Amino acid sequence: MAAIGLRTFRKTGFWWLRGNPWAPLSAGFCSRGPGPRPTSARQRDGIRNIVLSDPKRRNALSLAMLKSLQRDILHEAESGDLKVIVISAEGPVFSSGHDLKELTDEQSPEYHAEVFQTCSEVMMLIQNHPVPVIAMVNGLATAAGCQLVASCDIAVASDKSSFATPGVNIGLFCSTPAVALGRTVPRKVALQMLFTGEPISAEEALLHGLLSKVVPEGRLEEETMRIARKIASLSRPVVSLGKATFYKQLPQDLRTAYHLTSQTMVDNVALRDGQEGIKAFIQKRKPVWSQPDALTRWPHRLMGRARLV
Amino acid sequence: MAAIGLRTFRKTGFWWLRGNPWAPLSAGFCSRGPGPRPTSARQRDGIRNIVLSDPKRRNALSLAMLKSLQRDILHEAESGDLKVIVISAEGPVFSSGHDLKELTDEQSPEYHAEVFQTCSEVMMLIQNHPVPVIAMVNGLATAAGCQLVASCDIAVASDKSSFATPGVNIGLFCSTPAVALGRTVPRKVALQMLFTGEPISAEEALLHGLLSKVVPEGRLEEETMRIARKIASLSRPVVSLGKATFYKQLPQDLRTAYHLTSQTMVDNVALRDGQEGIKAFIQKRKPVWSQPDALTRWPHRLMGRARLV
Amino acid sequence: MAAIGLRTFRKTGFWWLRGNPWAPLSAGFCSRGPGPRPTSARQRDGIRNIVLSDPKRRNALSLAMLKSLQRDILHEAESGDLKVIVISAEGPVFSSGHDLKELTDEQSPEYHAEVFQTCSEVMMLIQNHPVPVIAMVNGLATAAGCQLVASCDIAVASDKSSFATPGVNIGLFCSTPAVALGRTVPRKVALQMLFTGEPISAEEALLHGLLSKVVPEGRLEEETMRIARKIASLSRPVVSLGKATFYKQLPQDLRTAYHLTSQTMVDNVALRDGQEGIKAFIQKRKPVWSQPDALTRWPHRLMGRARLV
Repeated sequence: MAAIGLRTFRKTGFWWLRGNPWAPLSAGFCSRGPGPRPTSARQRDGIRNIVLSDPKRRNALSLAMLKSLQRDILHEAESGDLKVIVISAEGPVFSSGHDLKELTDEQSPEYHAEVFQTCSEVMMLIQNHPVPVIAMVNGLATAAGCQLVASCDIAVASDKSSFATPGVNIGLFCSTPAVALGRTVPRKVALQMLFTGEPISAEEALLHGLLSKVVPEGRLEEETMRIARKIASLSRPVVSLGKATFYKQLPQDLRTAYHLTSQTMVDNVALRDGQEGIKAFIQKRKPVWSQPDALTRWPHRLMGRARLV
Repeated sequence: MAAIGLRTFRKTGFWWLRGNPWAPLSAGFCSRGPGPRPTSARQRDGIRNIVLSDPKRRNALSLAMLKSLQRDILHEAESGDLKVIVISAEGPVFSSGHDLKELTDEQSPEYHAEVFQTCSEVMMLIQNHPVPVIAMVNGLATAAGCQLVASCDIAVASDKSSFATPGVNIGLFCSTPAVALGRTVPRKVALQMLFTGEPISAEEALLHGLLSKVVPEGRLEEETMRIARKIASLSRPVVSLGKATFYKQLPQDLRTAYHLTSQTMVDNVALRDGQEGIKAFIQKRKPVWSQPDALTRWPHRLMGRARLV
Repeated sequence: MAAIGLRTFRKTGFWWLRGNPWAPLSAGFCSRGPGPRPTSARQRDGIRNIVLSDPKRRNALSLAMLKSLQRDILHEAESGDLKVIVISAEGPVFSSGHDLKELTDEQSPEYHAEVFQTCSEVMMLIQNHPVPVIAMVNGLATAAGCQLVASCDIAVASDKSSFATPGVNIGLFCSTPAVALGRTVPRKVALQMLFTGEPISAEEALLHGLLSKVVPEGRLEEETMRIARKIASLSRPVVSLGKATFYKQLPQDLRTAYHLTSQTMVDNVALRDGQEGIKAFIQKRKPVWSQPDALTRWPHRLMGRARLV
């Protein structure tokens, strides 16, 4: 059943993987360079689609994959042309997590440390990035693959997807995935997943907060892209300010959080797009947002680590 | 369909809005004063019903509305006669959030700051108030209106209600509503709402923790008032101590939280109503709580900012 | 209906309560000593089953019960023979919470303080313990009994179980239970339970994060023991490291959490069982974990307060 679904899926393909309908990419941005890369990325109408493209190795988050993903996420992050990022995967496995061949004693502890630190950097980058990042999941996401889903701002999955942190089965407790998982699902759900390694269904993942939405497989692309297009139609400075503020206030005490966000609201009202939006609403017309600008002046202090490396 | 429901609703009315059955209000407390006010409030049997009463403007949380609401919440907050507050609204919209006409560049940034600070004060007041505050929602609650629901201790809604933070559509990201929303629903749900502006249903809101209960519209008042009467039948000093302690321990580390609450339990046992309740239970009789007292001696240090301004 | 279910339950009994099939217990560990104790405990194949055994007093968490439970949890906690703990109860009530007879003014405030402090120590002990602790609930769990369920790492319940924090009804707000409850369910659910004292069903408890799993009564033991056996089949040093790290990182900011857990992953990879597990996976064979050792050298610094008292 799942196999049939997948075959159909592959036949249809993701439309953004076809070359034709795409507008010219911004200079220098073509992730399919001279050597083979484990991710591919295209951008159109403000939406950047990044695809994990190593299905033969179950899209394992090898160091090469992590660095390729990081590069695609960071590429021209400050450009006003970019409004939203969608991360998806080729094949039946969204991602199986770390490449275990990189974690034997044939490599040094320093190498192991680089793997986990790079992975953590990618996960934090998603949260610190100026535009929303959506995971579009169609299949199994395990260990650091599950962590990647949990780390995105929004996650849409097909109903046949499932999620697990099975590291404990092979003597490697999913401690880094648990950082993202423990911040999205109740701790009893997280611990059951971490201690038993057993998967949860997409429906359970939705119920417990790991996903934003679950749709039938045939509607996954349509629904995800609908959300992406919606976000791409909004004011980037406003969305970026909102995203950065959201994560900043979340761990604060209530008074500090309201102090910060009240000031953010005043700043937001004063933005060109803030005034334009409010006036358009009062005048019952469509707002016209600031045009993208190669060096959009959205607040740099909010960008955190989301800079090109 | 919704319109029919609402018409019925208006015809039946809320019983506490009819004048007759009410006992005399405490001196000086009649929120319908000489000038028109955007909220109305009545109190009976320990239950204060505050109603957002500006349906023509979709119960927008204008500065006047916020100050009126604040006054009604704060009025004789220390009186033992008050046991619980219910906040509801007239008309099909619970509240549409800020009044955008107050946020154009016709007002100064200082005025904008006052709007957001007053709003934040009201939201914190609800949490810091000595008695439980229940939101009774029958309709749409958006932006700061959604924040108001998220800020109440308990929220009961009719099944036709819905909830959204659509500020991003008009270039004003719901950053202050996100403070309350982000503390009640999983972050992926919050971010999907904040980034897309799309509403969630009452059922989804219940599933994700924004509501305590969802009932058919015809049972909304009955069920909410049943909960309110239940709380009104309890010991106010005990409930107040419990509420203040709950919010205080929530962000603490486990050891600090248990240190605080173990001491609270010892204090609670020593309260007159603590001993009365335990003895009544052992003796299989109904407890008789302390009588309300104009200046009930419930612990002032717990009151935080919940004082009459 | 519930009564019939319970009768069947008692007739069948829990298999681990029957003496015969058990392997010899480790020296000195037999919780049924000369005097009667309110808990009983047996251990086999790495699984320790602790049973609250005072059904006539609804398994009230009297000071004696708390100390007996604490002793059974702490017994040889550092032994590699112990892999997982299951806490269950005899009779239709899992636990009714504190013994109110210990909380009247016939005892001193110092005695009351000892009761609450001991209870808090037991709850923290569960979280700080080196092995996972599973609650297996078949019936009503109220007040500190509900807190005990909320404090376990995993909680499996029969569909007829229910959960409440009704202290407010007897003038004793469930402030210590609220610590555990407030960290597992959304605050609106917690406050509705705390302010009204009304129970929630097992299904609602699952929905809101208080439980990991709900099964029909007839399958409760089977499913719980399946999870316990699964955990018992894993590497204890790996599970212990993972559990300690999970709770440590949970309240940290994201960067600190990833710094900690990245180092934990490097340490985990370097563990004998880490390398064994990864190699076994690559070689497509079953891993052979380190044999239990009377003084297993799992990282002492992680043990926190989980020492034998």
